[in-house]
Amino acid sequence: MFKKILIANRGEIALRVIRTCKEMGIKTVAIYSTADRDSLHVKFADEAVCIGKPASTESYLNIPHIMAAAEITNADAIHPGYGFLAENARFAEICAEHGIKFIGPTAEMIRKMGDKMTAKETMIAAGVPVIPGSEGLLSSLDEAKSLAREIGYPVILKATAGGGGKGMRVVWEESELEKQFQVARAEAKAAFNNDGIYMEKYIEEPRHIEFQVAGDQYGRVCHLSERDCSIQRRHQKLVEESPSPFMTPELREKMGEAAIRAAQAINYESVGTVEFLVDKYRNFYFMEMNTRIQVEHGVTEEVINFDLIKEQIKIAAGVPISGKNYYPQMHAIECRINAEDPFNDFRPSPGRITTLHVPGGHGVRVDSHIYAGYVIPPYYDSLVAKLITVAQTREEAICTMERALSEFVIEGIKTTIPFHLQLMRNEAFRRGEFTTQFLNEFKLEPVEE
Amino acid sequence: MFKKILIANRGEIALRVIRTCKEMGIKTVAIYSTADRDSLHVKFADEAVCIGKPASTESYLNIPHIMAAAEITNADAIHPGYGFLAENARFAEICAEHGIKFIGPTAEMIRKMGDKMTAKETMIAAGVPVIPGSEGLLSSLDEAKSLAREIGYPVILKATAGGGGKGMRVVWEESELEKQFQVARAEAKAAFNNDGIYMEKYIEEPRHIEFQVAGDQYGRVCHLSERDCSIQRRHQKLVEESPSPFMTPELREKMGEAAIRAAQAINYESVGTVEFLVDKYRNFYFMEMNTRIQVEHGVTEEVINFDLIKEQIKIAAGVPISGKNYYPQMHAIECRINAEDPFNDFRPSPGRITTLHVPGGHGVRVDSHIYAGYVIPPYYDSLVAKLITVAQTREEAICTMERALSEFVIEGIKTTIPFHLQLMRNEAFRRGEFTTQFLNEFKLEPVEE
Repeated sequence: MFKKILIANRGEIALRVIRTCKEMGIKTVAIYSTADRDSLHVKFADEAVCIGKPASTESYLNIPHIMAAAEITNADAIHPGYGFLAENARFAEICAEHGIKFIGPTAEMIRKMGDKMTAKETMIAAGVPVIPGSEGLLSSLDEAKSLAREIGYPVILKATAGGGGKGMRVVWEESELEKQFQVARAEAKAAFNNDGIYMEKYIEEPRHIEFQVAGDQYGRVCHLSERDCSIQRRHQKLVEESPSPFMTPELREKMGEAAIRAAQAINYESVGTVEFLVDKYRNFYFMEMNTRIQVEHGVTEEVINFDLIKEQIKIAAGVPISGKNYYPQMHAIECRINAEDPFNDFRPSPGRITTLHVPGGHGVRVDSHIYAGYVIPPYYDSLVAKLITVAQTREEAICTMERALSEFVIEGIKTTIPFHLQLMRNEAFRRGEFTTQFLNEFKLEPVEE
Repeated sequence: MFKKILIANRGEIALRVIRTCKEMGIKTVAIYSTADRDSLHVKFADEAVCIGKPASTESYLNIPHIMAAAEITNADAIHPGYGFLAENARFAEICAEHGIKFIGPTAEMIRKMGDKMTAKETMIAAGVPVIPGSEGLLSSLDEAKSLAREIGYPVILKATAGGGGKGMRVVWEESELEKQFQVARAEAKAAFNNDGIYMEKYIEEPRHIEFQVAGDQYGRVCHLSERDCSIQRRHQKLVEESPSPFMTPELREKMGEAAIRAAQAINYESVGTVEFLVDKYRNFYFMEMNTRIQVEHGVTEEVINFDLIKEQIKIAAGVPISGKNYYPQMHAIECRINAEDPFNDFRPSPGRITTLHVPGGHGVRVDSHIYAGYVIPPYYDSLVAKLITVAQTREEAICTMERALSEFVIEGIKTTIPFHLQLMRNEAFRRGEFTTQFLNEFKLEPVEE
């Protein structure tokens, strides 16, 4: 087992890794930018090295500085956390060249999944369903027509230069195709001066459902069931849960098998996540694979009683996994508490935390790096705490979440707590009826302060 | 279900009950003495009523004041917590007379277990093993001899007026009996001017192992496995865990059956605990039954994934239990964090908490009513937090506890955190080798501050 791990990250995930290292008897090295001198990950690590200025490029993305810190402190492994260098293949390579174990997959595996086209081709070859669509741009209406017949309506036309919904048209049946094809082209031309259009199967009432997987150095791969991350705002996950309220045992088997095939296709080693879109008919399509630990890994840990960071470290050290799949025994929900003002378009709200009271009791887990008096720097992401509740049923987990949110006091900054409280009380959410579009229609009620 | 529950208690258990009520959608009424105006249970309840002066007899034991608070606020049930009035049969009766549901057993059940002699007779009649011994005082050496043959050596002679080990003698074989009988009598006479002596089976290497039980209003009783509470200082539990490292599946079956028989013997209704002493040969003997929720109920909740307070409230409301027994799926340990100075004979250390940082992360539960700035009053018990860790194995739960204790910062008062840290690092403790006598030999190392 490793003797000393350098954590190439900050905030809650740095603390999360330090905690497991402590429990495993492994020494830890924190790195920090000058903006993070007073961070808890610095205080809780056995050693800490300042690696540069606040800008990430000067510190948490500065590979030479990080490698120097690892060599000075004699670390024999590096945990990259999530974000920053976690999916940087070159960093994984440099670690290997220095004889320091990168706690994650190899550079080759990262590259195979990091490039979207390569990943898609790999998945098709492995028999993992991907969203059907045109290979490149549509050259004519006739091509569009025959492709749409092949993949089945509804389809969506998208501008290759697109963004913000411009040049994007859903086509529900063939009679609409000609008109929408022309509208999409014209819109694209007007908006981007580029009328290139491609086609995809339109996913009706999509849910973001992802599978946690783990693979070891000996070719064994298992899945650890799913997380539903459909509650997103501009592709940022805000709430995650396991199991998905949309899941059935049959679908879990099918998706779990597909997730395992996806990981096996690149001989995946480490913990990772295979993300799928699932439509209203429970068809599922590969989106991407994250070759790292994810923010929301905790909900899986709570429902399968399993420390995923410990597993990740053990895999990196060459310990074999059992190979059996894990199924949820409980229901867990996570709310991401961000330093953002939900009443002001989720604008970041860095600054000093004047008062802090953290919820506790049965079924409540808090992962956070903040403390009373801590100043949230403006340079990094706005996550200040992950609040996870776990219970025998989804309804109970929501009730516990509502209770825990109501106990959580963070003063001095704005947070997303009021947003989460209102979401937990939303009838459709409580019924488990939501898609990735849910927050587009969700209206926050004003709250008196 | 109840609409509004008054919690006739304070501190962490009041908060514990409020949390479950919130999750169940039940309104809560806190009561408080003038010393507890700034307590968290007052802040977190829907309503709060001041019921008197700091002295418990003026407030938390003042039945007329509590009943008045319940009537003013229209509470339809009272939860007594533990301590104070929780095992006061008269209080349960008065609640019933006022048409307010006492969340616990009936006055009759409390009385049957509250009187030690009645309890012992009830247990013998129910076939639950009790510690064999003389009925009353020994009249002669001959009587002592024949009784000792009957119950088997070793036996212990105890002064009826005794205490502090005076007049107490362990007799390992018959050849020693005459001499020890005379020494014990002489010592008792000299120490207490009363040479009355009685005999009990001597329990070798005793462990305190208790079974959580639950019974409903329809005669169903189940057990929820055991807790090992052998780590005690002067009969005060400091650490509890489930399962017991001394337990075997066979012994759990036998003790669980005996615990169920004990509860059935008084038609027990509510959650409760049957306490046993277990000797080195795994013989077990009934000690007493606590007809209330216990401080350490959380370790059971964590290993069976079950909210015992919710169950207690549901039983009081007439909801039937399933009747099946529950077995530990995980391992949980609790450390009682007291406002006491472990380096100064555990002297109470009330006062203002200047800094507070609570541990978090995977496998950590904190039940506490304290906050930064809170002043611990000198009038009540010294428990400030229950720190519980849970993991797949006992070893992992201990590692998580060590990590969590090392993160826990409570400044301004002395706490038992340093004691617990040293205990968690003790080799014999880690091997699970301890009896109720363990702390007599445990030496605390001085710590530099």
